[in-house]
Amino acid sequence: MSSWERWFAEQRRAREAAGLQRVLHPKPVDEDVVDLAGNDYLSLSGHPEVRQAAAEAALRWGAGAGASRLVSGTTALHAELEGELAAFTGNQAALVFSTGYHANLSAVTALADRDALIVSDAHVHASLIDAARLSRAEVAVVGHNDVDAVRGALAGSGARRAIVLTESVFSVLGDAAPLDELAAACAEHDALLLVDEAHGIGVLGDGGRGLLHARGLAGGPHVVCTATLSKSLGAMGGAVLGSTGLIDHLVNRARPFIFDTGLAPAPTAGALAALRRLRAEPELAAHVHRRGAELADRLGVLRSAGAVLSVPMPSPRTALGAREAVREAGVRVGCFRPPSVPDGVSRLRITSRAGIDEQRWSRAVDVLADVIDEHRRTP
Amino acid sequence: MSSWERWFAEQRRAREAAGLQRVLHPKPVDEDVVDLAGNDYLSLSGHPEVRQAAAEAALRWGAGAGASRLVSGTTALHAELEGELAAFTGNQAALVFSTGYHANLSAVTALADRDALIVSDAHVHASLIDAARLSRAEVAVVGHNDVDAVRGALAGSGARRAIVLTESVFSVLGDAAPLDELAAACAEHDALLLVDEAHGIGVLGDGGRGLLHARGLAGGPHVVCTATLSKSLGAMGGAVLGSTGLIDHLVNRARPFIFDTGLAPAPTAGALAALRRLRAEPELAAHVHRRGAELADRLGVLRSAGAVLSVPMPSPRTALGAREAVREAGVRVGCFRPPSVPDGVSRLRITSRAGIDEQRWSRAVDVLADVIDEHRRTP
Ligand SMILES: Cc1ncc(COP(=O)(O)O)c(C=O)c1O
Ligand SMILES: Cc1ncc(COP(=O)(O)O)c(C=O)c1O
Repeated sequence: MSSWERWFAEQRRAREAAGLQRVLHPKPVDEDVVDLAGNDYLSLSGHPEVRQAAAEAALRWGAGAGASRLVSGTTALHAELEGELAAFTGNQAALVFSTGYHANLSAVTALADRDALIVSDAHVHASLIDAARLSRAEVAVVGHNDVDAVRGALAGSGARRAIVLTESVFSVLGDAAPLDELAAACAEHDALLLVDEAHGIGVLGDGGRGLLHARGLAGGPHVVCTATLSKSLGAMGGAVLGSTGLIDHLVNRARPFIFDTGLAPAPTAGALAALRRLRAEPELAAHVHRRGAELADRLGVLRSAGAVLSVPMPSPRTALGAREAVREAGVRVGCFRPPSVPDGVSRLRITSRAGIDEQRWSRAVDVLADVIDEHRRTP
Repeated sequence: MSSWERWFAEQRRAREAAGLQRVLHPKPVDEDVVDLAGNDYLSLSGHPEVRQAAAEAALRWGAGAGASRLVSGTTALHAELEGELAAFTGNQAALVFSTGYHANLSAVTALADRDALIVSDAHVHASLIDAARLSRAEVAVVGHNDVDAVRGALAGSGARRAIVLTESVFSVLGDAAPLDELAAACAEHDALLLVDEAHGIGVLGDGGRGLLHARGLAGGPHVVCTATLSKSLGAMGGAVLGSTGLIDHLVNRARPFIFDTGLAPAPTAGALAALRRLRAEPELAAHVHRRGAELADRLGVLRSAGAVLSVPMPSPRTALGAREAVREAGVRVGCFRPPSVPDGVSRLRITSRAGIDEQRWSRAVDVLADVIDEHRRTP
């Protein structure tokens, strides 16, 4: 056994001792469960039109893009999706990436280098944290949603380009960022506000146009939006939305765009069909909201700004126990325990979902209310 | 205009002045061109069985995985592909990622941290360079294929974990790494040899099992293999191949795996169908080789270790001119100019391809030989 294998084994034992070892559980295609753990908020991944569009694209275009977008991997499908995403969200232009992770890595590293300052909210997603690290910029991590701290950091940026990183709806706690105040602070300091709308688009704003759109900030001169095609849009991939100047800059400078094979035809077409569904059915976004509020009230927790409901639990053990118990009753929810929670509090992460029928939804709400209540009372 | 827009415009003008400005060219579905710029070496992206498998997966499973692989985004399809990839390449286990870029970021950052030493070949791909940077390990960049320099760097690693980064076939120059000697050096120093087989699998080794397999190194105790599903396997995505201990470690530790939505069903199934085609038609790999050798001989350049042919040109201008001229004659090739060449020499990058009919192939070879020869003589 090499020292590497010993190291893997040691770390595994440590994880097992701490109850943190995780394994993959492949699911069968016909699994009968109400999935409130994932991010397919509008159930568009499985919508007949979306499935069909993805399938047709694979038949027409093939299984892959075959090359980097800059070589020969840009299809008319990509361009169509980019045009419609930009128009939908109120931006001049859009660029599609293979993942939301690639979108964040690309935007941040193309905008910030050693000579820049990044001011990052303490709760931002791993992809933004990695992006900031990769950029080699100085990174000032500020308290969650602390606008004064952001202002303070920007005041110290001097002549450097400065970028503020936040999410519109945060992925774990489900709360929203104070975008108006952050945008004002950025405009004052000529800094750029980068907002990850991974959990905003499809859920917030007029017909799901996102929180930046709702606040009248979309397409603004100091705002950049990143997004995923893998959550409300039910497919996979990511996007950056902003000015044509920004997009041109990314095409020429973003390494995780330039040196990566283009997004495959099927998810590209799937996301496009999902976007069209969302435009045709603007009430989908409001529906997720209503269900989220209903569920929050039943569970006696704070309503979410978006679709992500965060349910604090007394301990890691009760969180895990509740997840298993609801799973046995046919409902899947997520479970976050230290060290992967921003504040050390174990919790269930439950996502509201449109597009599942009323009866299944009500049954799921009943299961959750009963089981979670029981587990909260026995820590 | 904000200072950001001015910055974008300034940089664009500088790129334009240097002849380096790049724009995307969306291609129509019925484009009539022999594409020797991409990496779909076996033409499996468009193989009827592969298209069909991708389409069926979108219809059966939906357009997206809906969540991280660790939450509810692992399907039976992922598990099937992982099992067959591991068996095919001679490894204990495999893990599938959304892109080859994610696979490299994940493998390197999960294996190396501040306390590790990374020894990197000077020619490795952008994704490995970014991965090394992101890991925060000390990075020693050594000369291309310089085994003595690798040994020297490893001798100075002290008690640190050390990882050596290389590619089996290099993506731009098309040459191979001295894997035997590198593996021996790593074994001596208890270091790990990470080999990116993006351009090796499907092309090198028995029936396309890769260069590690050909050298008897696959699955060895000091070897980790990364791969893409976006080149010979015609889809999108990446993989890490190695021991079960390694894969378990990545599942629990690799942030670009944990915090990313799973690879969508269509490309997962597409890659699986392509792998099965490759097993059923092991002569595909040899065919790419034969064509590559034929083309190299006609162009009077060094034969490639794999499918990537590198054709040095007298100047950036002649490289660009030749690319445009062959394009007008119906053949697409890649063009690399400073600053994106490892050695400052402008070149065409032409990939050999199986799966296009003999007549089209011969015509393409004739076009290339004529046009390139002409452009080489008029610098
Ligand atoms: C806030 C946020 N940003 C980015 C991502 C990455 O997106 P993707 O899964 O498409 O890579 C995620 C989730 O995965 C996310 O929650
Ligand atoms: C050597 C090498 N590694 C990794 C990658 C990244 O793979 P992917 O395009 O699947 O992200 C590429 C090409 O894109 C490559 O050439």
